[in-house]
Amino acid sequence: MRIVIVGGVAAGMSAATRAKRQNPEAEVVVFERGEYISYGACGLPYVIGGEVEGFDKLIARTPERMRGEGVGVRLRHEVIGVDSKAQTLTVRENGGATHTEPYDRLLLATGVSPVRPDWASPAWASTGASGVHVLRDIPDGQAIEASLKGAKRAIIVGGGYIGLELAEALRSRGLSVVLLERGPGVAGRILDLGYQRQVRHELEKNGVDVRCGVTVESLTAKNGRVTGVQTSSGLLRCDLVMVAVGVRPNVALAQAAGARLGKTGAVRVNNRQQTNVEHVYAAGDNTESVQRVTRRKVHVPLGLTANRMGRVAGINMAGGEAQFPGIVGSGIFKTFGLGVARTGLTQHEADALGLDAVSVDVESTDHAGYYFDAAPIYVRLTAERGTGRLLGAQILGHPGSVKRIDVIAALLHSRGKVHDLAEVDLSYAPPFSSVWDVLLVAAGQASKAARLPRENTPA
Amino acid sequence: MRIVIVGGVAAGMSAATRAKRQNPEAEVVVFERGEYISYGACGLPYVIGGEVEGFDKLIARTPERMRGEGVGVRLRHEVIGVDSKAQTLTVRENGGATHTEPYDRLLLATGVSPVRPDWASPAWASTGASGVHVLRDIPDGQAIEASLKGAKRAIIVGGGYIGLELAEALRSRGLSVVLLERGPGVAGRILDLGYQRQVRHELEKNGVDVRCGVTVESLTAKNGRVTGVQTSSGLLRCDLVMVAVGVRPNVALAQAAGARLGKTGAVRVNNRQQTNVEHVYAAGDNTESVQRVTRRKVHVPLGLTANRMGRVAGINMAGGEAQFPGIVGSGIFKTFGLGVARTGLTQHEADALGLDAVSVDVESTDHAGYYFDAAPIYVRLTAERGTGRLLGAQILGHPGSVKRIDVIAALLHSRGKVHDLAEVDLSYAPPFSSVWDVLLVAAGQASKAARLPRENTPA
Repeated sequence: MRIVIVGGVAAGMSAATRAKRQNPEAEVVVFERGEYISYGACGLPYVIGGEVEGFDKLIARTPERMRGEGVGVRLRHEVIGVDSKAQTLTVRENGGATHTEPYDRLLLATGVSPVRPDWASPAWASTGASGVHVLRDIPDGQAIEASLKGAKRAIIVGGGYIGLELAEALRSRGLSVVLLERGPGVAGRILDLGYQRQVRHELEKNGVDVRCGVTVESLTAKNGRVTGVQTSSGLLRCDLVMVAVGVRPNVALAQAAGARLGKTGAVRVNNRQQTNVEHVYAAGDNTESVQRVTRRKVHVPLGLTANRMGRVAGINMAGGEAQFPGIVGSGIFKTFGLGVARTGLTQHEADALGLDAVSVDVESTDHAGYYFDAAPIYVRLTAERGTGRLLGAQILGHPGSVKRIDVIAALLHSRGKVHDLAEVDLSYAPPFSSVWDVLLVAAGQASKAARLPRENTPA
Repeated sequence: MRIVIVGGVAAGMSAATRAKRQNPEAEVVVFERGEYISYGACGLPYVIGGEVEGFDKLIARTPERMRGEGVGVRLRHEVIGVDSKAQTLTVRENGGATHTEPYDRLLLATGVSPVRPDWASPAWASTGASGVHVLRDIPDGQAIEASLKGAKRAIIVGGGYIGLELAEALRSRGLSVVLLERGPGVAGRILDLGYQRQVRHELEKNGVDVRCGVTVESLTAKNGRVTGVQTSSGLLRCDLVMVAVGVRPNVALAQAAGARLGKTGAVRVNNRQQTNVEHVYAAGDNTESVQRVTRRKVHVPLGLTANRMGRVAGINMAGGEAQFPGIVGSGIFKTFGLGVARTGLTQHEADALGLDAVSVDVESTDHAGYYFDAAPIYVRLTAERGTGRLLGAQILGHPGSVKRIDVIAALLHSRGKVHDLAEVDLSYAPPFSSVWDVLLVAAGQASKAARLPRENTPA
């Protein structure tokens, strides 16, 4: 039994270790086109910001260690073709010669690539300017690090997770930062509008010049280095540009294998991570998952999801039985002194899906108001009108306080109701929460709001 | 409709405000024997420690504000008798004259009193020594504050929540502290043995001299001030003694009314907070509740439980309909730099109940190990063998990280399984957790352990 895995980061390496554990007799081989395997890509912005000591700290398992566990790792091996009838791959070594590799089970864990918009593409051509970057892997991070020398003014394009984390990182490094966002607010795909505003306020409080509703038209360069960004509202000078406008799943290999994509554009799989092609599996950022709240297919490339899909694929490829449970849409990030967390659906997302949803907004303190250092915490809880089913939550507050979003994630997992949440025996002591934890207050209000007819409730 | 409430702290005041809101026509009167109503008793140790600025900060609602909301408040009114046939109370005002008060609905929210062991009782007699204290209400706190002047050496008797919180408070105030505990470990009724040891280590690291397996025999005094504690292992000198050996429910009035007590010694009620006596309700620390995990009656006097029972009683007394959902046994406290949380049952408690339980212990970091300031976090997860039903959890770690116990509390509330927990889409980003949050790791291990026969699993 030869199990071949394409892609050696989160999903790929999780799959490899699980497959080997499931079936120690199997040959497990990982082809990775890059130089590194098994690194925490989510930590990249924090190496730049200085919260992580170096890129090597992100590496969880080296090729040597994997080999010690009986997993073969081939670095700088790019898989450029697949014949799913013959069950073979075409592999290019070190950018040179190609050869053929057989497989009995194949996992495509090819991840995503940053979107590189047309206006930025000259910068990446051989004739283009330096100082224009994306951040997806360790070499990207190293290139940014090199570009930072002498840089003073950065422009970040895109106000999603990566853009926001980079804004903080570059401010930590002493640069002036302008953040450009095409939409009306930052974190627009993560939060409802009011919470977007609070995130923007935190950025501005920390010296980030946030400009929303601005599109980029082109870059300017001089002597091979970027010098500015031409936008819909004028030219902005800079010596560093970060392009963080989203990612696209790497699906070329899946398509070559005959695997179907879903409406999301990512690879479609069943809950055992099988594609429609026999013996071909997919897992990780290139793959769809099921959103348990809506029971729809979604493409949400995040670290835990990728690792979990990888485990499931690894077990199944090696003859075991595991199912991916789906996601509920949890996400968390930090921007300067503000923690931001969400799970399930925002009101906006629920509306777009045609759900009859109602949201309540509660402000409280992260611990007892009389206990020193109490900080504000904001919870928006979204429920289905009539049934009271929990649909989602958003939390803003001190970074130490927002992981209580996980309580909501746990209840969403089992399709709980706001009334259930209102009754939970949450832990209380003055240094940790108010007697009525903000989640309980929000649940009580949402429980009431969900019982009222639409015309009597907040939007 | 005249609703009379005996006791004006957590349960009593919650009941009063809810009853008035439920039925604005009702007369709602609260009799409180003390000077204060509606204060956060859980905050008392933190006033002494300095984390709360003064005792007045603990007061959530003044009598004036309550009167403004239409609730009558009678301070220094002790209810000393009840005739549940005639529906009247005997009330002593300011320690003097008594009179009779009628009621239509009566709530007994009389709370608990600290246990005052025989060896300490001379200290409280008129001939006794000063410097010997319990901590239950604001006057207790004020008396401690007065005793602290010039005090250098404190002995705390009892290693439960209050004893541990006082140990930290008195160290903050610069005293040397000896903590005496009769049992083999501190937090013995809260945690399993291994975790008790870690709490003890944290106390010792912060200069608390912890002595377990020691019983107190008597106190010594000189010139009206305590000078030492005679123990089973010798005389210990001190100038301050804190007695924190537990609490007893105040049930005399309930018994006088004809209300039955449960096996726990606290007042027995149904889930609407009704005693067996018509029109007589009980709520708060004097009252039993149902432990949802075991479906047994328990007596766990804690703040949220008291407030929640009070609300339920208030709504029902005023003609509404509410039910107390029971507790799952959540508790949380801080001792110096260590946060400690538990919910459900410990392995020890499960064993004592004859449940077939298995526990797993997991150590991880509170956030990504490569991100600066990662601190250890320890999770013990307890599950029912065979079914995998979650029975409980214990968490130790940085205070900012242990409130994730609430995820377990939420799942216990709905009788979830460790397998469910293992599948939850918990939020992840490097500043907030590992990719596999410690709860997921523990759940995965517990899920496996619960499937194995007894002889193959850890105790």
